[in-house]
Amino acid sequence: MKSLSIYQDFVESAIAAYHLPETPNNLYEPITYFLGLGGKRMRPVLALMSAELFGAPFESAKNAALTVELFHNFTLIHDDIMDEAPLRRGQETVHKKWSENIGILSGDALLIEAYKTLANHPPEQLAQLLPVFNQTATEVCEGQQWDMDFETMEKVEIDAYIKMIAYKTAVLLGCSLKMGAIVAGASESDSNDLYEFGVNLGIAFQIQDDILDVYADQNKFGKQVGGDIIANKKTFLLLKAIEDADATQSQELNSLSTEQDYELKIKQTKAIYAALDIKAKATKKMNEYHTKAMENLAHIGIADEKKAPMRELATFLLGREH
Amino acid sequence: MKSLSIYQDFVESAIAAYHLPETPNNLYEPITYFLGLGGKRMRPVLALMSAELFGAPFESAKNAALTVELFHNFTLIHDDIMDEAPLRRGQETVHKKWSENIGILSGDALLIEAYKTLANHPPEQLAQLLPVFNQTATEVCEGQQWDMDFETMEKVEIDAYIKMIAYKTAVLLGCSLKMGAIVAGASESDSNDLYEFGVNLGIAFQIQDDILDVYADQNKFGKQVGGDIIANKKTFLLLKAIEDADATQSQELNSLSTEQDYELKIKQTKAIYAALDIKAKATKKMNEYHTKAMENLAHIGIADEKKAPMRELATFLLGREH
Repeated sequence: MKSLSIYQDFVESAIAAYHLPETPNNLYEPITYFLGLGGKRMRPVLALMSAELFGAPFESAKNAALTVELFHNFTLIHDDIMDEAPLRRGQETVHKKWSENIGILSGDALLIEAYKTLANHPPEQLAQLLPVFNQTATEVCEGQQWDMDFETMEKVEIDAYIKMIAYKTAVLLGCSLKMGAIVAGASESDSNDLYEFGVNLGIAFQIQDDILDVYADQNKFGKQVGGDIIANKKTFLLLKAIEDADATQSQELNSLSTEQDYELKIKQTKAIYAALDIKAKATKKMNEYHTKAMENLAHIGIADEKKAPMRELATFLLGREH
Repeated sequence: MKSLSIYQDFVESAIAAYHLPETPNNLYEPITYFLGLGGKRMRPVLALMSAELFGAPFESAKNAALTVELFHNFTLIHDDIMDEAPLRRGQETVHKKWSENIGILSGDALLIEAYKTLANHPPEQLAQLLPVFNQTATEVCEGQQWDMDFETMEKVEIDAYIKMIAYKTAVLLGCSLKMGAIVAGASESDSNDLYEFGVNLGIAFQIQDDILDVYADQNKFGKQVGGDIIANKKTFLLLKAIEDADATQSQELNSLSTEQDYELKIKQTKAIYAALDIKAKATKKMNEYHTKAMENLAHIGIADEKKAPMRELATFLLGREH
């Protein structure tokens, strides 16, 4: 695989060169600020790599790549308002730095910019790209709504949780890949397989995220290890523990949810997880989705060696050894 | 002109038949609720009438018509949050009935629905419609931002005010007409003239709105007459009065802005308006835009008698006698 940084640098340049009007300042300055906060640019990179996978120059997917990155940033600006998050990538969120109203409106304007960028594709391509992007955009909103709904629901099924993380996060990875494939003129069957590859990889990635939040090495982890446990976040691990717990463990999990000594809360929750073998169960689930993703990739009708970059990317994202 | 109600009924049926998913309930129920609050459906009616003007069946512009109505409702849901408005058409606003978060997210989903509906047009039409719609959507956000900015600005120029009302409201009327024209295969020149007709008509309509807020007959007016004066709203009338006032009148306007006796505030502001002939000046400005609109319409290369419905609509909107 080309070094990821080649694609990332291309995306950074495209974002830096992206033209926004100067005024109204209060509408466009927050967008420029937020796009400048950086990030791994994983979604646009996927779009570029996908175009290359199907034999097109990766630069040909520039507009599709920008579209998914602009869209992703729109969702972050609005999610930060909904989650009352003060920080994003270590910097103030838009609604904190400016105001909620400015967060709402500049987010709206950014979503429209995503559509403007998409409209740069020629008519026949646009007619294929727009429905894929629209459907994904809808699902991302649905995922965010499920996520908010789950906060106040007493019981959340594991399947509903998987669907939520798929919609909230994974489908946009699939969409990014599929849009790159469409730009490169890939067959519908290959585009769909690559879409599924992205969705399954995204689900595996989210489950890994849940695992790391509990079991990561604090020295290498950007957030507080155990943060999800402290916040009673309904992760795969907690939901699986609730599902498998006996009466005593259920009661204990329940009373731990109001425990104010966070060190104790983490320690005792982890003890229940250990008793129920939750880490292994979550790892098994993650591996299932990784395997599915690899099957999707294998199904694509191009030479196996060309798929090496996608396999390497999957390995990179899931932080595995070969 | 066909009775307006024929177009309005068609729009109501199309909205009633519009398919939204059942779940997540908290995402889609607010949208269904809000679309059901009614309204004059003026924007979709314009799209339908425009297609008919250029010889197509009005039904052929159904998707374009729905797109502008869905978009308009998205802007209302988000504007209501930004304006902290408790009521819309006499009913609770989405953020009041549910929550701000639900208002933000269901508004987002509704904007995406507008794009989904637009995507039903065939590729070549879509490639023409999407940039028009995108540009308008951006300008509507810019107009809303200017409107919010003006609230805290000490001095607002009349030209900036006209641009704000053009962007916030009038361009969407122009866009609705232009999209109907594109669907009917009108020439670019005719589509653009009709767009300008809509924008100028919209500006005239907004200035009339400012006039009516001060001078309407309370028995026939849906809101409180003088509401803009009480709220110190920077309308065309107030901005013109500030521009034309002598030193004494300036000082008086300034001290009236903090007057707590609303009856007195309205009475004394109207006295200054009378001394400065503000009603006549506003009416003159409104008539200028009405005249421009009529010139745009006259410029369109189709038989004059076919334009009668558009002239009648303008008369209807501006509430004039022939």
